Amino acid sequence: MPDTHAVSSEFPIDENAIRVPYAKLKDFMTQVFQATGLPDSDAEGLARAMADGDLLGKDSHGCIRVPMYVGRIKGGAINKTPNIHVEKQTPAMAIVNGDNGMGHLVARYAMELAMDMAAKSGIAWIGLQHSNHAGAAAVYASMALERDQIGIIACVGSANHAAPYGGSDILVGTNPIAVAIPALEEPPVVIDMATTNSSLGKIMVKAMHGEAMPEGWVIDAAGQAITDSALADDGILTHIGGAKGFGLSMVIGFLAGTLNGAAFGSDVIHIGEDPNSETNTGQFIMAIDIAHFMDPALFKANVDRISREMTGSAKLPGVDEIRMPGTNSWRVHQDRKANGIPITAPLLDRLNAAADEVGVPRLL
Amino acid sequence: MPDTHAVSSEFPIDENAIRVPYAKLKDFMTQVFQATGLPDSDAEGLARAMADGDLLGKDSHGCIRVPMYVGRIKGGAINKTPNIHVEKQTPAMAIVNGDNGMGHLVARYAMELAMDMAAKSGIAWIGLQHSNHAGAAAVYASMALERDQIGIIACVGSANHAAPYGGSDILVGTNPIAVAIPALEEPPVVIDMATTNSSLGKIMVKAMHGEAMPEGWVIDAAGQAITDSALADDGILTHIGGAKGFGLSMVIGFLAGTLNGAAFGSDVIHIGEDPNSETNTGQFIMAIDIAHFMDPALFKANVDRISREMTGSAKLPGVDEIRMPGTNSWRVHQDRKANGIPITAPLLDRLNAAADEVGVPRLL
Repeated sequence: MPDTHAVSSEFPIDENAIRVPYAKLKDFMTQVFQATGLPDSDAEGLARAMADGDLLGKDSHGCIRVPMYVGRIKGGAINKTPNIHVEKQTPAMAIVNGDNGMGHLVARYAMELAMDMAAKSGIAWIGLQHSNHAGAAAVYASMALERDQIGIIACVGSANHAAPYGGSDILVGTNPIAVAIPALEEPPVVIDMATTNSSLGKIMVKAMHGEAMPEGWVIDAAGQAITDSALADDGILTHIGGAKGFGLSMVIGFLAGTLNGAAFGSDVIHIGEDPNSETNTGQFIMAIDIAHFMDPALFKANVDRISREMTGSAKLPGVDEIRMPGTNSWRVHQDRKANGIPITAPLLDRLNAAADEVGVPRLL
Repeated sequence: MPDTHAVSSEFPIDENAIRVPYAKLKDFMTQVFQATGLPDSDAEGLARAMADGDLLGKDSHGCIRVPMYVGRIKGGAINKTPNIHVEKQTPAMAIVNGDNGMGHLVARYAMELAMDMAAKSGIAWIGLQHSNHAGAAAVYASMALERDQIGIIACVGSANHAAPYGGSDILVGTNPIAVAIPALEEPPVVIDMATTNSSLGKIMVKAMHGEAMPEGWVIDAAGQAITDSALADDGILTHIGGAKGFGLSMVIGFLAGTLNGAAFGSDVIHIGEDPNSETNTGQFIMAIDIAHFMDPALFKANVDRISREMTGSAKLPGVDEIRMPGTNSWRVHQDRKANGIPITAPLLDRLNAAADEVGVPRLL
């Protein structure tokens, strides 16, 4: 049966949420991060990547993270003035050392590099080391769209919340992957998914709003379902498709982490619990230049045609609409760009508390 | 709860299955394909890739496919003397045109090319067009292991058996992906998985042996579970993680199919039902040369360390053993290499019928 939560908005519908314009939210976050000691352009770049996540409906990976990031920057876990640089490069691949800067800045740097390299070679793979949590993965994958490229990013999760398949030791992150594929008139096809049934961020959003989790997201060490989102931290996030999702997660961990000399397994730092330690977070990023394969206009027309085939399918009972991956997020993006980003009361409290902490004006 | 079927052998335990040595099975298949008109070296290459699949425990994608492939070669769907060639190449990527040869030959050619290119550039991506069903994907990904490379292959499924998420029109294949990562003393980490909860091949194996399917593999157009494997053809294969697996499948379809000018969506030919039509099957293949990232010995030692962390985890109730992805297949490989490949009675009947059809000696 379709689990509609997987394609609906992450935030609960809240008529009382205040709509804050993108620029206002971004400027607020810029001020917060300037106040923590980040250079102006880095504070702005970080705030932009976070607000872009909110714009895409990735409520769990946007401004909700302000308090955690402030805590990590103030706690000394982050290099405020990193020298993000290329360690090694061929026409096909590069290794980018993030010098322990905020992951948003490292990921953006690497995706720009990947796109430039792919424009020449058709394909580029960038391994990231000494990076950090980068917020919403779709933000970086989607950078490729306007260049008629396909963007890919996969990350070692910045905290372990899952176990190996059949086990109960917390050794595995949500290890997400995002892919963005351009279309012509239809919305771009974009996935941005944890390899677990839920991301940690989605659970964080539910906990903040006092909502229960569906059965199947989290189990306890006896294998029983946990549905109280406030208790999720004591549980085990389950993988999509059982052994299959665990397998995908292992592959992402080795490619995004181990291959880059970055953390994976028991050496992953829990960013929510430890505001002081360097994480050595690993990611990999790819860009694929469509023109090296075929006429981009023809490719995008084919994406449209196939997307329409899919959305035009007969529906299972109880299903209102069939959507391609990323369509919901694209619609949210249109809405929030026009009408602002919804800030619920508990979220506003958190953002204002962070503003108070660093001594800048409150958001509202 | 762990669904143990996902990591156990595909064939039912059958004490009466005859163990046939690898070389004997391969030679039998070589003779069969020679008799259909394939050149000797191509017949041998095809038989080897198929027997390699059986050796890895991919019962659903090895010799069980002999009758179908014979039907397609005799039916005129396959080019018996293809000119498999590179259409385009940069240091990072290539497009390989399979000229409608057997997919096993095209995939092997492309993986060899990918490995040679990755040895120079660190990474290579090969797009395949005018290919065909290539059997067990793990066979090609695993070719990279002995060169201290990581191998990846993803395929547009050679028949549609799934629907878009929430829909019931049969427009989507099982679109599998395989990744092989070398280890030092531990088994290599290998995934080879459909993005649906079951591959079609696994259902085929169950149907041949009169076994039921677990609930959740296949549903009907009313959304109700089908468990009779003989009725699976009338049903809809479900995706892992619902919308997430559908998203993965779409991404694989666009990258392995559409980007290479190959089929995806309604233009996919059902190879089980249509023995006459060219399929224009698409795949993509990658090789990643570990030495371009770090010392391969250190990388493999780290894979060992993390694998041992995972398998050493505390277990959920009822779980006997925690395995890394590919360990079961690796054990089956050791066993079958030493003791032969189990051929059950219904499988032997099929193989011998194919031998009779093309006029070569029966297997047994």
